[in-house]
Amino acid sequence: MFEVAEIGRKLSKKQFRLIAEQLHTRLLEAQFKLRDSSHPVIIIVSGVEGSGKGEVVNRLNEWLDSRGIETNAFWDETDEQAMRPAYWRFWRSLPTRGNIGIMFGSWYTRPIVNHVYNKIDEAEFERQLVKIREFETMLAEDGAIIIKLWFHMSRQAVVEKLSQEAELRKTAPQTEKYIQQYDQFLPVCEQALRSTEQSRLPWHIIEATDRNYRDACCGEIILETLETHLEEAANAKGDSRQAKSHKLELPHQPTILDRVDLDLTLTKGKYLTELAQAQSKLNKLAWQAREQRKSIVAVFEGWDAAGKGSAIRRVTQAVDARLFKVISTAAPTDEEQAHHYLWRFWRHIPLAGYMTIYDRSWYGRVLVERVENFARHDEWQRAYGEINHFEEHLVEHGIIICKFWIRISPEEQLRRFQERQEIPWKQYKITDEDWRNREKWDHYKDAINDMVAHTSTQHAPWSLISGDDKKHARVEIINTLCQSIATKLKQET
Amino acid sequence: MFEVAEIGRKLSKKQFRLIAEQLHTRLLEAQFKLRDSSHPVIIIVSGVEGSGKGEVVNRLNEWLDSRGIETNAFWDETDEQAMRPAYWRFWRSLPTRGNIGIMFGSWYTRPIVNHVYNKIDEAEFERQLVKIREFETMLAEDGAIIIKLWFHMSRQAVVEKLSQEAELRKTAPQTEKYIQQYDQFLPVCEQALRSTEQSRLPWHIIEATDRNYRDACCGEIILETLETHLEEAANAKGDSRQAKSHKLELPHQPTILDRVDLDLTLTKGKYLTELAQAQSKLNKLAWQAREQRKSIVAVFEGWDAAGKGSAIRRVTQAVDARLFKVISTAAPTDEEQAHHYLWRFWRHIPLAGYMTIYDRSWYGRVLVERVENFARHDEWQRAYGEINHFEEHLVEHGIIICKFWIRISPEEQLRRFQERQEIPWKQYKITDEDWRNREKWDHYKDAINDMVAHTSTQHAPWSLISGDDKKHARVEIINTLCQSIATKLKQET
Repeated sequence: MFEVAEIGRKLSKKQFRLIAEQLHTRLLEAQFKLRDSSHPVIIIVSGVEGSGKGEVVNRLNEWLDSRGIETNAFWDETDEQAMRPAYWRFWRSLPTRGNIGIMFGSWYTRPIVNHVYNKIDEAEFERQLVKIREFETMLAEDGAIIIKLWFHMSRQAVVEKLSQEAELRKTAPQTEKYIQQYDQFLPVCEQALRSTEQSRLPWHIIEATDRNYRDACCGEIILETLETHLEEAANAKGDSRQAKSHKLELPHQPTILDRVDLDLTLTKGKYLTELAQAQSKLNKLAWQAREQRKSIVAVFEGWDAAGKGSAIRRVTQAVDARLFKVISTAAPTDEEQAHHYLWRFWRHIPLAGYMTIYDRSWYGRVLVERVENFARHDEWQRAYGEINHFEEHLVEHGIIICKFWIRISPEEQLRRFQERQEIPWKQYKITDEDWRNREKWDHYKDAINDMVAHTSTQHAPWSLISGDDKKHARVEIINTLCQSIATKLKQET
Repeated sequence: MFEVAEIGRKLSKKQFRLIAEQLHTRLLEAQFKLRDSSHPVIIIVSGVEGSGKGEVVNRLNEWLDSRGIETNAFWDETDEQAMRPAYWRFWRSLPTRGNIGIMFGSWYTRPIVNHVYNKIDEAEFERQLVKIREFETMLAEDGAIIIKLWFHMSRQAVVEKLSQEAELRKTAPQTEKYIQQYDQFLPVCEQALRSTEQSRLPWHIIEATDRNYRDACCGEIILETLETHLEEAANAKGDSRQAKSHKLELPHQPTILDRVDLDLTLTKGKYLTELAQAQSKLNKLAWQAREQRKSIVAVFEGWDAAGKGSAIRRVTQAVDARLFKVISTAAPTDEEQAHHYLWRFWRHIPLAGYMTIYDRSWYGRVLVERVENFARHDEWQRAYGEINHFEEHLVEHGIIICKFWIRISPEEQLRRFQERQEIPWKQYKITDEDWRNREKWDHYKDAINDMVAHTSTQHAPWSLISGDDKKHARVEIINTLCQSIATKLKQET
């Protein structure tokens, strides 16, 4: 989840100044229009230590009109608060309709801290997350606009920042402690975010290493949420005067895919040796998995011509044919369309001990269906949570999930497309649709970035594979697969 | 919750035949119209052992067209099923759009059975209930119409029925075992129903002692749900041809209030003695609660002129004035209206060790606001779950909740209204509104019945008080209050 906020997004001073001016004007405008509405606005400001949440809150207070905005910091409970149910103080701090409440710390803080320090166990933690969902759903159904912001920085960036701050305060930096805290908190926070992500109540993960980007991104998210609500309200009233506001776009930023180094290659000789080694290992592991009745689900996604098919063949070559099934996902059949979109993937879930390989998968919902408008906005937005729940079902049953995205460069794709057109037995593989998809490269990049942000979880992480060199990709995929299986099997033996 | 299905609802053979004929015709009509829609229909048939679920399923198959209806019985898992995640078999059984799936046994069965027999603990049980909520929400958001039916019978009725069946099979009735099973299952089932009740996915609790009533009620619920969906779909399409179908009404049935015996009285002498005893006990308990830092929340609801005010005065006479607060709930203020409707009740939650008495309460949402259309249908429907969550927050914090509904007969109310008009110092207590409310007596009775069905829970049950004799009512209220407090205090010492 958080890896999408470790990719070096930033804005220059000049870029920021331009954006900030627009944000200031448009946020005020939106705030003014909201005043007469029945929507209270709740902005939850949370994130890793050192990400500058205080600065963000100050910035928001600078951009918004102070009348009608209230900042609530939830420090330690007062005696008065401790003597009432935990949510009493949150209820006392809720903004009234038309007003904005900034929650600096919130109902998330205590469950997370208590779980990290083992004051509450896993089950109690999950119960408290359910309570949060109930609470937020209830407020949202009553009209509240809840904007949940999570400010993230990489471990290294946090350590550097906290160390600098310590030096400024003339105290010794405690690098070890920072790292330890970071590593303790992050998985618990991920669980909290994942579990409380709902279709109308998404989490926004913001890369906070660069202050300019952090503040602009945060402002842009708030603005877009408010303007979307205002438009919906106007539409519901049949009021067309509220012109659809043009989306305020931040300058182009790298996505998670830019983190994949496309220069990785293998020589032919090395490839043959390593492939043989990896395949032999996979063969043994597949048999072991069968003995231990562990199923494997492997998902292959990637750009057109990224080499999914040939990578899958290298996997299946290694595994006994009785142990696996390959499911190719094309347009749904009539029967499949008459069901929930996950139905056709559930049906192929392997028996204990077997492997199912999905050549494209349920992620079509948030990729092609999103980009091509086959699914409505609310449908693909909701799908992140549905997919996470689906994969949780599998993981809880002991199934091992590996998800691969194969990245290639547009130039490499072009080369492969042209090759396909030229070689007779490859011509069937290239269609007009492939060329059309190419034009939507940037839309897909955004969709992939969001997909990784929402569905790369501890129990089912995405592996992003460098695919310009097919030989490298194939070996890396089989090795990753082996490692995932081995880890799960070892735990049991 | 289940007490609303122990009030002796029944239909004569003749009444049933009339209803069944209409149900048959209209169900077929609705089924036919649904075929072209994008809605799959899922009917969950569950309930206590012996309530005749099999007969119900047969009846539905008789009323509906067999094309497009499938009955799924979930017995023990096959090997094939056990080797896949638990939900795999449910996914395999989901109906396609336009078709109906009857689930005889369902995703509820295993968690409930496993929890009753201690194979899974409380925390795991709650986790599985969350999974159920996620699953049902996902299906509903995809267009599924999920109708959840729970067939209930009193302990005695179950024992009688099972004993009869045993005798027919010439085996010895095992009364002890039936009672034990019933008592083990019921609280677990209540928790499952309460936790999975969502605004658009309500549970319908059906009294199953009388077969005619059981089947007719079940048919009526299914019909109403389907027709409502068809109307909504037609409205959404702007298709006004789908005339609003008249609601099919079952012959008038008793409500939970009819179970309250209005003939209970106390003589003046007995009243004075018992009141003094009860008050003295309450006084001590209030101090003990204060020492143990246990808060008390007492809710008073009832018909106009039921004697809420005078009963509350008898309570407050007994308790030290420093220990309690009485909150009278009138029309909400501007500030209160600018918040979620529960906000104004949260603010008065007592400090640890104190008592808050609510003279009318959050239940206004599902009583006056429902009957007078101050709240939309979805708003008051949703409120049952919201109220249960709210009260869970209180109970988990250790707060003791007592909820009183004071029943009086319409005749007694009339007598009191007239008295109020005649006695000068009581005239301020009677308004035109009181007379208007009287005309809606039956609407209120339905609302009260539903309120008890949805919000009388193990941790916060409703006490229905016989109020025609004020003396009796006051003593019973204070005694009930004392008992609730004493139970909670004892547990801790």
